[in-house]
Formats: sequence, C-alpha cells, structure tokens
Amino acid sequence: MITILRLGHRKDRDKRASMHVALVARALGADGIIISGEPDDELLQRIATVGQKWGGKFKAEYTASYRTALKKFSGKKVHLTMYGMPLQDVAPKVASEKNLMFVVGSEKVPREVYEMCDYNIAVTNQPHSEIAALALTMRECCGTRIYSQRFPKGKLRILPSEKGKNVEKI
Amino acid sequence: MITILRLGHRKDRDKRASMHVALVARALGADGIIISGEPDDELLQRIATVGQKWGGKFKAEYTASYRTALKKFSGKKVHLTMYGMPLQDVAPKVASEKNLMFVVGSEKVPREVYEMCDYNIAVTNQPHSEIAALALTMRECCGTRIYSQRFPKGKLRILPSEKGKNVEKI
Repeated sequence: MITILRLGHRKDRDKRASMHVALVARALGADGIIISGEPDDELLQRIATVGQKWGGKFKAEYTASYRTALKKFSGKKVHLTMYGMPLQDVAPKVASEKNLMFVVGSEKVPREVYEMCDYNIAVTNQPHSEIAALALTMRECCGTRIYSQRFPKGKLRILPSEKGKNVEKI
Repeated sequence: MITILRLGHRKDRDKRASMHVALVARALGADGIIISGEPDDELLQRIATVGQKWGGKFKAEYTASYRTALKKFSGKKVHLTMYGMPLQDVAPKVASEKNLMFVVGSEKVPREVYEMCDYNIAVTNQPHSEIAALALTMRECCGTRIYSQRFPKGKLRILPSEKGKNVEKI
C-alpha cells in the first residue's frame, strides 16, 4: 500500500501542482492521495475523472487535519524535503516496507511534520519540484515496477507508438 | 551534455510548471534549458537567480523557434510524450549517447516534433506530469549519478539532516 499525503494545498496557487502530484502518484502505482490544506472539490473531481477515463482504483480524499492523517497511519511515513537525508542512502531501508506514506509539502512545511515522519528524504538537496521528488522517490523505493502498473476498467488505453499517437477506446 | 527543450511555454499558465522543469533539469545535472513559446524574461531571471544562490553552471535561454533549436542540435533528440515507446525499453539505447536533448511539451505538441525527434518516450502511457516524466527519464538514461551532482560557486548549501533544516552560507 502506498498513500500520498499532500500538505498545505492552496486552491488557486496549487491547482496544477497538486493535480500533477496526484497524477504522478496514480500513474506510478500509489493507491491513493489524501489532500490537506484548503478544501478543493474540483480537484478531487478532476482526479476522479482521470480514473474513470483511464482506469485503476486510485482514490483521492480531503482531510481537514494532516496531523490526524499522519497519526492514524500505521506504516512508515516518508517526508520529502530538500533538507533531508539523501534519497539514495535511505531508499534501501524504505524499500522493504509494505505500507508507506509519502508526505509531499507545498510552500512552508510545519516543523512537527519533520518530527512525526519516520524519514525525511531529500532528492539532491537542491531546490526543484515536489512532483519530481515524488516520482524519483517512488522509483528508488519501489523499483522499476512503477513503470508497468495495470489500470483495469478504463475507457481509454494508449498503444505505444514510435512516431505518433495511438489511443484505443476499450 | 544534456539540454532540455521546453515547448510552447505560456507565460501565465505555465509559470510554475516551466520553472519546475528548469529546476529539475538543473538539480539532476542537465547543462541548460531552451524555452520556446511566449517570451518570459521573468522566468529566465528566476532560473538565473537560483543558479547564483545555489551554484552550478546551468543556463537558461529563450528561442523564438523550437524548430530551429531542434534542427541546430547535433545529438540525439528524445521527446517525452504519453504516446511514445516505454521508457524502460528505450532508455538503454539512449544511455550510451554523449549529447542528448530532452524535449518536454506543454499542452498540445505539434505533429512535426514527433517526426523531428529520434525517440518518442513515454513514462507509463498514463496521463501525469511532464515534470515527473523529465525526472524519471533522466534517472533511467543517466543513472543514479543524477543524485550527486556538484554545484560550485553557490552562496548556500544544505547539509543533509534527519529531522530538521541545516543551511550553510558559503
């Protein structure tokens, strides 16, 4: 089980970034995302629509308290932050865990999140993108199986193509 | 040499997404980014500011014609698209190349881009994020060395930390 916890979503400013986080999580095989911050029904709806169209069982929900979500979660909690320990050093420890929560911040992450998580992981210690950080963390913790997930019951499927676009209706 | 070509930048809508693309490219060791679409001096300036602060030699420039940028480039051109061939199959062929351009679209990518590039690569054939696609493509084509790049002449450096933030002025 892989769950993403998105911290501090801001309805206007993070509209696209939070959607990217959710889509990446889904495409690479996470089971669901919990979004905290400002409530945003439209975002939840857009994520659900992608699932209806492209298949799979990915779930998105809102929480009014990231603290409760962190406390309730029984597996290992991995916070992605540019200040943390190198991904390549921590990933082998995390890889054997069966139940993982990846915690992805937006602007300023409260101090207690660093304390409440089991690991604080950095992807390069340079400023970049929480979207890329999530993708690379899933790559190193879950291996290359992230690239070949199955998405049953979708309405559309892409057939890989060398030069064009080939979309099949199912 | 690794160059990113960002297609169809829209000054308002892609402000953050293009910045994320540039920052990911820089953090993972690309040499520079060429941005096409709407001219955006502020974006170029913000990328330059990150370099002054955090070091390294990453370059950002604007081109009025992505076509010219593609034609002028002498190495292998790799277009990231959800319609392409699986990353995990193509990456080994690309990995041995010394001079690579990763082409990253925004909304609608012109047909000719598919033709002008040597490879069209898909990261999962599912809808997600060009930012994550770039990160994972660099991971599979360049290996784990993307995580330990050097950024000389910066003013700030992060010392990895298990629970907090540790930023050093240089």
